[in-house]
Amino acid sequence: MPELRHDPIQRRWVIIATERARRPSDFSIERELPGNGKQCPFCYGNEARTPPEIRAFRDIPSSDGPGWKVRVVSNKFPALRIEGEQERAAVGHYDRMNGIGAHEVIIETPQHDKDLPDLPIEDIAALMKMYRERIVDLQRDPRFRYIIIFRNHGAAAGASLAHPHSQVIATPVTPRTVAIELQSAREHFQVKERCIFCDIIVQEMQTHSRVVTADADYVTWCPYASRFPFEMAIAPRRHQHDFAAQDDAQLMKLARHLREVILRMRHALSDPPYNYLIHTAPAFHHHAKRPGYWQTIELDWHWHIEILPRLTKTAGFEWGTGFYINPTPPEDAARFLRDVQV
Amino acid sequence: MPELRHDPIQRRWVIIATERARRPSDFSIERELPGNGKQCPFCYGNEARTPPEIRAFRDIPSSDGPGWKVRVVSNKFPALRIEGEQERAAVGHYDRMNGIGAHEVIIETPQHDKDLPDLPIEDIAALMKMYRERIVDLQRDPRFRYIIIFRNHGAAAGASLAHPHSQVIATPVTPRTVAIELQSAREHFQVKERCIFCDIIVQEMQTHSRVVTADADYVTWCPYASRFPFEMAIAPRRHQHDFAAQDDAQLMKLARHLREVILRMRHALSDPPYNYLIHTAPAFHHHAKRPGYWQTIELDWHWHIEILPRLTKTAGFEWGTGFYINPTPPEDAARFLRDVQV
Repeated sequence: MPELRHDPIQRRWVIIATERARRPSDFSIERELPGNGKQCPFCYGNEARTPPEIRAFRDIPSSDGPGWKVRVVSNKFPALRIEGEQERAAVGHYDRMNGIGAHEVIIETPQHDKDLPDLPIEDIAALMKMYRERIVDLQRDPRFRYIIIFRNHGAAAGASLAHPHSQVIATPVTPRTVAIELQSAREHFQVKERCIFCDIIVQEMQTHSRVVTADADYVTWCPYASRFPFEMAIAPRRHQHDFAAQDDAQLMKLARHLREVILRMRHALSDPPYNYLIHTAPAFHHHAKRPGYWQTIELDWHWHIEILPRLTKTAGFEWGTGFYINPTPPEDAARFLRDVQV
Repeated sequence: MPELRHDPIQRRWVIIATERARRPSDFSIERELPGNGKQCPFCYGNEARTPPEIRAFRDIPSSDGPGWKVRVVSNKFPALRIEGEQERAAVGHYDRMNGIGAHEVIIETPQHDKDLPDLPIEDIAALMKMYRERIVDLQRDPRFRYIIIFRNHGAAAGASLAHPHSQVIATPVTPRTVAIELQSAREHFQVKERCIFCDIIVQEMQTHSRVVTADADYVTWCPYASRFPFEMAIAPRRHQHDFAAQDDAQLMKLARHLREVILRMRHALSDPPYNYLIHTAPAFHHHAKRPGYWQTIELDWHWHIEILPRLTKTAGFEWGTGFYINPTPPEDAARFLRDVQV
């Protein structure tokens, strides 16, 4: 069972993955990403090489065989385990929890060599629907506090398989990064009775120098204090706290918007490695409507997607301070991304 | 002039380095680290290729010529600029400061191919003295809130020159990571009238399973909630808040301890890329002894060095949550590092 451990000085939880414990020699091996076909566990015909199917979109019902369009399985090396009760314990000055949670892989398409923006728009919309479905399903579980969906593209961004896939992790604590964002949003709302993200979106649309693309429903911009060159944020222009609250028509529009943004990034930066991640409302809001603290989450939170191209190395200064040095002003980045042909 | 920008949602400052602004094409070029001799700006005879000398240890006084043992220059591409008054401004919802600070390079040795643990112990002690001297000098400047010293080893850890060097950055705000640590230490002290680091060191020495090496003065252990495989922390065993408060005899002992720790890491992990960084007491404590808040810093803070081998890739989950997945339990890491022959 993996373990969650708390750092009392940094106030941060860490997952210690004891079951796939790696020895010093394991780190020196440069793994090659498996190719198309027989070798790849995410290709048609190799369904038995993954853990059992949790969910799939198929034309003809079946399980663990080919014929699917989007397929969800447990991660073969899960960072957190779904089985068991949450246990908490003190270890001297430290705090420990057992590693309860969920860690799923969403195989986005049976096509090994097609990346997300190469898929027909309906298939991207199907992926967005699967994101919604996994959020809705996992947030029913009262043990989970937060559900995060993310996508690693390219080995330098942490992808260990080339076949296009996203991941879902449900955590039994609210992650620190999310907790800080939730607190900022809540405090802003308490003073102003306005959503901080709505305020930012209005300012970005007015300034326009950091906007990459905007349509009637969604806007993508390079954040004012971007940590990384060409960092982007996507958000719905109208207030909406929960990614999973989007209807099918909205998800189709989001698919179109997301495809355009990824194509712009691919063309401007020669298909860079990148991560994207969805910050939706916390799960526990659904099963623990506490008075006071979480009462206003539907008003003060605003879901968004962060897209982080991985062009620079994180070094001692960043690890030691949490301060980032970004060599490309977001205004310049947005101009390049706007001007590229897609 | 670089700019500091504040993210109102993540509550984090970012340095936007406008003067070395990088275009999309700049990121695709894989730079090769310059070799020994004529090409390297940090080798003897190439002193004119760096910005002017700030300080050096030399047997015969001179400036900007060969003959030095440790040499400090401004970073040629500084993240922050030393000249000017601090200016603060609002930009709509956002906050901006001009990028006042210091960014120095400490060239550790004239020998291009000798890494830190290959140097004679006296030379490592001289480097520690230079660290002390730069901290003492920079913390006199009332514009600076925090001074961080760090070292990037290997291209994967962000080093852009192979010649052994450390860096110093003085920031006009307290970095978020440091602010969280300061707050934890202060709150612990307020309740218990004990230093949180002293408490942790006592527990680590008693448990011993995470201790890598300890002598009468310093201890190195793998933190209970290590973010990264083989992460280590070094601290003085007796309470001391300020790295720069160490006398020459202490620095000689620290040099010996640090060399052993880096050798253990090098042997156990085949000379991995790594970062180390020093968390000393904040600079502003020296020029702004505010009542209340900073009164107890000499009692509640405890300087330490973090050593972070860079064996794993940071991916979407980590960027999106601040949560880390560590595949090597620190108890295993410490055992490997203890058992290796040095």
